[in-house]
Amino acid sequence: MESAIDKHLKCPRTLSRRVPDQYQPPFPMWVARAGEELRQVVMAYLGVQYQGEAQKAAALAALQHIVASFALTDGPLNHDLTHHTDNSGYDNLIVVGYWKDPAAYCRWLRSSEVDGWWSAEARLHEGLGYFREVVAPRAEQFETLYAFREDLPGVGAVMDSTSGEIEEHGYWGSMRDRFPASQTDWMEPDDELRILSGDPAKGGRVIVGGHDNIALIRSGQDWAEAGPEERSLYLDEILPTLEAGMDFLRDNGAPLGCYSNRFVRNIDLQGNLLDTSYNIGHWRSVEKLERWAESHPTHLRIFVTFFRVAAGLQKLRLYHEVSVSDGRQQLFEYINCHAQTGMLRDAKPAPQACPAQANAS
Amino acid sequence: MESAIDKHLKCPRTLSRRVPDQYQPPFPMWVARAGEELRQVVMAYLGVQYQGEAQKAAALAALQHIVASFALTDGPLNHDLTHHTDNSGYDNLIVVGYWKDPAAYCRWLRSSEVDGWWSAEARLHEGLGYFREVVAPRAEQFETLYAFREDLPGVGAVMDSTSGEIEEHGYWGSMRDRFPASQTDWMEPDDELRILSGDPAKGGRVIVGGHDNIALIRSGQDWAEAGPEERSLYLDEILPTLEAGMDFLRDNGAPLGCYSNRFVRNIDLQGNLLDTSYNIGHWRSVEKLERWAESHPTHLRIFVTFFRVAAGLQKLRLYHEVSVSDGRQQLFEYINCHAQTGMLRDAKPAPQACPAQANAS
Repeated sequence: MESAIDKHLKCPRTLSRRVPDQYQPPFPMWVARAGEELRQVVMAYLGVQYQGEAQKAAALAALQHIVASFALTDGPLNHDLTHHTDNSGYDNLIVVGYWKDPAAYCRWLRSSEVDGWWSAEARLHEGLGYFREVVAPRAEQFETLYAFREDLPGVGAVMDSTSGEIEEHGYWGSMRDRFPASQTDWMEPDDELRILSGDPAKGGRVIVGGHDNIALIRSGQDWAEAGPEERSLYLDEILPTLEAGMDFLRDNGAPLGCYSNRFVRNIDLQGNLLDTSYNIGHWRSVEKLERWAESHPTHLRIFVTFFRVAAGLQKLRLYHEVSVSDGRQQLFEYINCHAQTGMLRDAKPAPQACPAQANAS
Repeated sequence: MESAIDKHLKCPRTLSRRVPDQYQPPFPMWVARAGEELRQVVMAYLGVQYQGEAQKAAALAALQHIVASFALTDGPLNHDLTHHTDNSGYDNLIVVGYWKDPAAYCRWLRSSEVDGWWSAEARLHEGLGYFREVVAPRAEQFETLYAFREDLPGVGAVMDSTSGEIEEHGYWGSMRDRFPASQTDWMEPDDELRILSGDPAKGGRVIVGGHDNIALIRSGQDWAEAGPEERSLYLDEILPTLEAGMDFLRDNGAPLGCYSNRFVRNIDLQGNLLDTSYNIGHWRSVEKLERWAESHPTHLRIFVTFFRVAAGLQKLRLYHEVSVSDGRQQLFEYINCHAQTGMLRDAKPAPQACPAQANAS
């Protein structure tokens, strides 16, 4: 048994773990490991928004274009593709790319091919929406959790290995306890989402400013290799409750501090559905995520089911990764997306410059 | 809003609270308050064990005798009576008495009337079982929580007043956070239950030795004044799940660290049922209680229901009190009780004196 917090990320605690040292988890779980040289990762969710079958081919072509750009120098080390329909009735294709070198990501983003495409006037007139939601958590700002040990998805795929059985899981608060940052930091938000430029109601280009410690959770399911029993466990028992919980957050998340919630299904490059899915949740803070997860009937039911079956899982793969990030390590940009997309819904207009300040400048 | 930990019990923390300072509970709850002069309380659960209607009158007379002894000098300041049938098929009458002066309790216990009755040879030959389970937590070793503010039951009745709305509730871990001791102490067990004298299998007199930080929870329900809607909420919605959870703990608690669990119904001195009840749970530690409460389907369902209705409760009174105590501030004594009673079930034989030690002494 070992701590979820890797040795080189340990530091003298000013905040205590939630459980005593004697705590024993009720079943085994694992986390992703990387060497000390991994200082910061980049998680870039790049989206194409469209409406219905008529636009599907164009949207898919746009997604394929983005994926092709990953083959450029400094592209991401891992990526996967998803589709979901949002509660405004729009379809969305997202590719998420993972980097373990923020400088490489920066060079890629600023390359003439990538920046040229994003900045081109043509993007405004294709009848499609585009978005980029990117966070770059440092090594102490994210945690992972897997009920399996091979072929880690998501950020795990750009890391080096899998841990031994870890201590910090199976209790409420263990997510926080797996963050190296939690040893000394409450990871609290310092501001609200702000519209930095543009107007979501008018479409066009909009930039949203984030804030410190926005929490991003990717919580995934992979039933591709599951036998009949585990397929049924997932599809008949877990999925209906999971969908109810994720729909609840999508539709009612704002007052709870959930900025955006997308339950997405993996697809291949041609748009065919795969037997993997995940939820992408953006939260005002880890604390808001904790409060919901610990109290909402749907999540408690999922938790109970997981507790019951976790020790016996064979091929059904369940996992999550959760990060926080500094506000200045976030990028939320939208082109012609509807006003409920991503961070747009809860972003407040930037405070107007006060005339006295304007005069002073 | 104020902390559940009273001002005079605050100390510099070495262990952190589970939630950030900004945490806001989702509905109001209150705790009992007492002045600095309250240093330690005594909670004495005094029981009579019998089988079936034939013995009921004798058992009730024994209970009445104990209650009458409360009127002696230094008797408890508050008490209430209960009945429950245990899973060995025995009936049990318990009166719990509360003192706020441990010296008074000691004088009462050692008085010739009380000690004489308990120690009398006659107790062994009445065909009834008797037990005394007493703990004496210091002010920093117990916490309370009420969804109401008037006429506090249990330990609250021997305290002075009710707090304002408190901060530490509505999240897993808040029970621990309400213990003043939790500011600096994990409240961990230091040993196991041990048979100190006698043999539970043979009956007769048996004394069990406790250990530091046994957790005792009294978790109560009072629907006496509830209107039709709240009676139905309690009896039809909460009670079935509550009973399932409490039965589970009674029958399957041992591997979870639950030494004893009794869901008891209040009665009057004649044995008539009242519309109040509570659960009496003894646990190896607060941590074991936390683990069960946070993960068992029945408790999660009760929690979800409580969250839903808490803000609107009118006359249905729900509350709990939880304590830990030092091993030497505990008394577990049994006379002719069956071997599954109270602490008897999980108590291990005392380690046999090693011959070398015996020689050395």
